[in-house]
Amino acid sequence: MKIGILGAGQLGRMLALAGLPMGHSFHFLDPGEGESVAGLGGFTRASFDDPDAMARFVASVDRVTFEFENVPAAAVARIASERPVAPGALALERSQDRLIEKQLFTELGIPTAPFRSIETPLDLKQAAAEIGLPAVIKTRRHGYDGKGQWVATQTGDLETAWRALGAQPLILEGFVRFRRELSIIGARDAWGGTVFYPLVENHHGDGILRLSLAPAAVEAELQAFAEGYAHRLLDTLQYEGVLALELFQVGDELFANEMAPRVHNSGHWTIEGAETSQFENHLRAVLGLPLGATASRCQSAMVNLIGSLPVDTDLLACPGAHLHLYAKQPRPGRKVGHVTITAESDPELRRRLGNLMRYLPANLLPHLPAPLVRQVAPGEILPVPGAREC
Amino acid sequence: MKIGILGAGQLGRMLALAGLPMGHSFHFLDPGEGESVAGLGGFTRASFDDPDAMARFVASVDRVTFEFENVPAAAVARIASERPVAPGALALERSQDRLIEKQLFTELGIPTAPFRSIETPLDLKQAAAEIGLPAVIKTRRHGYDGKGQWVATQTGDLETAWRALGAQPLILEGFVRFRRELSIIGARDAWGGTVFYPLVENHHGDGILRLSLAPAAVEAELQAFAEGYAHRLLDTLQYEGVLALELFQVGDELFANEMAPRVHNSGHWTIEGAETSQFENHLRAVLGLPLGATASRCQSAMVNLIGSLPVDTDLLACPGAHLHLYAKQPRPGRKVGHVTITAESDPELRRRLGNLMRYLPANLLPHLPAPLVRQVAPGEILPVPGAREC
Repeated sequence: MKIGILGAGQLGRMLALAGLPMGHSFHFLDPGEGESVAGLGGFTRASFDDPDAMARFVASVDRVTFEFENVPAAAVARIASERPVAPGALALERSQDRLIEKQLFTELGIPTAPFRSIETPLDLKQAAAEIGLPAVIKTRRHGYDGKGQWVATQTGDLETAWRALGAQPLILEGFVRFRRELSIIGARDAWGGTVFYPLVENHHGDGILRLSLAPAAVEAELQAFAEGYAHRLLDTLQYEGVLALELFQVGDELFANEMAPRVHNSGHWTIEGAETSQFENHLRAVLGLPLGATASRCQSAMVNLIGSLPVDTDLLACPGAHLHLYAKQPRPGRKVGHVTITAESDPELRRRLGNLMRYLPANLLPHLPAPLVRQVAPGEILPVPGAREC
Repeated sequence: MKIGILGAGQLGRMLALAGLPMGHSFHFLDPGEGESVAGLGGFTRASFDDPDAMARFVASVDRVTFEFENVPAAAVARIASERPVAPGALALERSQDRLIEKQLFTELGIPTAPFRSIETPLDLKQAAAEIGLPAVIKTRRHGYDGKGQWVATQTGDLETAWRALGAQPLILEGFVRFRRELSIIGARDAWGGTVFYPLVENHHGDGILRLSLAPAAVEAELQAFAEGYAHRLLDTLQYEGVLALELFQVGDELFANEMAPRVHNSGHWTIEGAETSQFENHLRAVLGLPLGATASRCQSAMVNLIGSLPVDTDLLACPGAHLHLYAKQPRPGRKVGHVTITAESDPELRRRLGNLMRYLPANLLPHLPAPLVRQVAPGEILPVPGAREC
């Protein structure tokens, strides 16, 4: 099968790397340079709004999917008249607008922080009065990695936020004092069959995912709740493919933050850490094939490489370390790769992760949890990992 | 790094699939069509004897390796004056000629079946008289997958074998009544560091590898012997890269059969079954990077798809099944893909493998060990594997 992918970043890259071993080929369409997918298939540089380029792209492939949720839903609906496209326009529409997304969660009985639709500065004041401060004010569209967000701690911030966010329709959400951030990744196949990966614990810095630990150490009950929420979304959206749902844990409860109708950064660990990777399962769903097992094979930690690359190749000798590079030029704030560390037990994982810190670019360390980074205090000598160690 | 690969079959394909995630790119040179590497890098269709094409190929890459051991050693020696090439011409030369290879084993104290160099029909008679029949008569060069071999069971066969094998210099080897066939894969880096994968148990049919089980259930002592033999070869050849050594187990002893100066079919299980795959470790050695851990992550079984492809996509739902296709047109006797099954325990592996048999092309079954195939007797109903099962 020739699979067309809208978007050509690292997610498209890893989809192709999962599909090529199974004998599939790929064609990407993206307005950017497509450096991450160079050599992995055909590439059309075009806007998602360019009807001619889109028509040629669609005619050249058997199936279409996307790796980027801000593809115009109308464009995806047009594609659907020519070729099977998964997940469908419905899932895209619902997840592109934070207000519609939150309303969907509420309709399906999935708990969220309290939220209000904001059309005017007056709405903002009213909402803040009702829900209380601090609160998070977000654009309804096109935010990612912490962009398009503003945390208001006092009434005076509201006017500033309104202007800073461009005086457009917004959503105000109550500030969740969460114990930790989790995510669940699920997949649904063409016949409605679903699979779910174990919950993942995520650590952000500057609004960008820095570290995922999988499986998260949670009660079975929490896993069941998370799967139930994801299941409702997958079924309601008649979804085909992988969907990620970000959650806040407060006490023993889960609150949905947002969903992504695509493979997700918090699922990169599945390449080495699960029986079947999220990328392979997404392709299986898109191609009408049975889904693969989602059980974890070990304990995994995924560290994003952001803004710079590791310089020391000894990183490769760290036991259990698996380096993934995205063929992107490093720029501040840009995800240019990730490292997954695998281990048989959680203590061993944490030890290996501590060792890994020695080989990571210094700019990453301030954004990682302190207990990890403390392990590379100057002068401290850690056991040097050897390739035969694990 | 841009890596040049001589040869463009499934081994080249899997080398590229291991290197692309790390950000490397590939260029292949092969006299064939290169269908297995289409879309994974540049491709030059040329003979290994074409000096102009070779010169352009070499100039276009940073490093060179090969996936096929019958590349002329002289061509590799010429490349070495322009670009780093690994493993070197020495390893190629020693493994291209079965007699020289066996002599090297003997020099290094690695046990083999008794053998004789054959130049004339008279040599053949004398050797058969000394070593006894049955004996295996082989061409010195260019045999693979059981080709270029003749088993003589009585004196009258000797003349037939001499003519059938083209009246050329041969090697006669004593017939080894082995308990089982094993192989060990090792890698040596640019500084002489070595790593070894666990021994693998191999099952052949019609001279072609059909099934590998890894790690083989062996005493630690046998692993140590095998590592010792491979180590001597790696050091003597000043080897950089992955080397495979095929062994016969007779009682508790190991006899070397042959070596392959490249990644090897009996190491495909390492993609899912080991911490670092043989393909990644070969590239690491070629690129002067530290080698990765070789520990097994589970029990693995690798089944070659030969001559035809599985038709039933339910194969993908078998727990622990990982399908690899080589993008080749199926033809009788041609390796077109493989399936690796992983499991936590040996009994579970054998159960999963039995289930897998239901989904394999019928032509493969007669060549697989009977206990596996018996599980798909007509009318027998096996539990249908589900994706969530493992």
